[in-house]
Amino acid sequence: MEIYLIRHGIAVERGIYQQDEDRPLTDKGLSKTTRVAKKLAAVGLKFDLILTSPLVRAYQTAEILQQISLSQKIETFKPLAPDGNIQEWLEWLGGKFSINPDSKLAMVGHQPDLGNWAEMLVWGTIKEQIIVKKAGVIGLEILNIDRPLGTSKLFLLTSPKWLI
Amino acid sequence: MEIYLIRHGIAVERGIYQQDEDRPLTDKGLSKTTRVAKKLAAVGLKFDLILTSPLVRAYQTAEILQQISLSQKIETFKPLAPDGNIQEWLEWLGGKFSINPDSKLAMVGHQPDLGNWAEMLVWGTIKEQIIVKKAGVIGLEILNIDRPLGTSKLFLLTSPKWLI
Repeated sequence: MEIYLIRHGIAVERGIYQQDEDRPLTDKGLSKTTRVAKKLAAVGLKFDLILTSPLVRAYQTAEILQQISLSQKIETFKPLAPDGNIQEWLEWLGGKFSINPDSKLAMVGHQPDLGNWAEMLVWGTIKEQIIVKKAGVIGLEILNIDRPLGTSKLFLLTSPKWLI
Repeated sequence: MEIYLIRHGIAVERGIYQQDEDRPLTDKGLSKTTRVAKKLAAVGLKFDLILTSPLVRAYQTAEILQQISLSQKIETFKPLAPDGNIQEWLEWLGGKFSINPDSKLAMVGHQPDLGNWAEMLVWGTIKEQIIVKKAGVIGLEILNIDRPLGTSKLFLLTSPKWLI
């Protein structure tokens, strides 16, 4: 199956909203994220499900993906919030989610978690060597759902500018 | 500085040409590679130099990049031929090539070398976990030119379909 780790778009700076989790996307963030979503749709991508961090900037990003018809379903998922735990969502992935070789799942979240998770899945360790820009996308092929860490393949890593 | 490892486009199948190294790009290979090159140019990319494997399918790919004005200079470079040696071109990089923080270098070559080199630069070891399609692009940021293995960053990995 394929997992697409998608970073939220450009959000309002810290400090303007009292709660960090309430920061929404800026106009630029909305338009850039929309253009990324349109490109993914143009390539023919469809997700079985979009899971998203509950934070506003992530949820808005997920909504844009859904509005561009990349998926019918969207669910908030706590392990995708900042400092989320990969083991939690891997357990969920191995359990609840009905997987087949064609399954495609989007997970909208934050840095440095997304890059770290990609490194764990592909190389088994975190070196923080992957650069993931806002509204950037990481594409991973999970070959062994029972033992995904260190066994998955990386086929996509891109910032918005290469997509739009 | 940035290094772009670019895999040659789709070439004529093995067996039709007596020498593997003479296989040229197919019409599809030519058109897809041209579209990739146009996208890279549209993003604003300019290379100081394009180095290419001397094999026909790689050299043709490099020529397309040059024709789309991605670089004025193109040179064949033996360490980029199949089973080339990363140490050879790293030595060249540290010596002959005049590097500054804005330098951008394209290297056109073959799989599995390109993916392996990217892994060595970023993680220090080869796991063959990076998928690089024909006319695909890997973007690396070299932070330490004297000790690039295991210290470089990965910012781009894409097959043509996400670019064109």
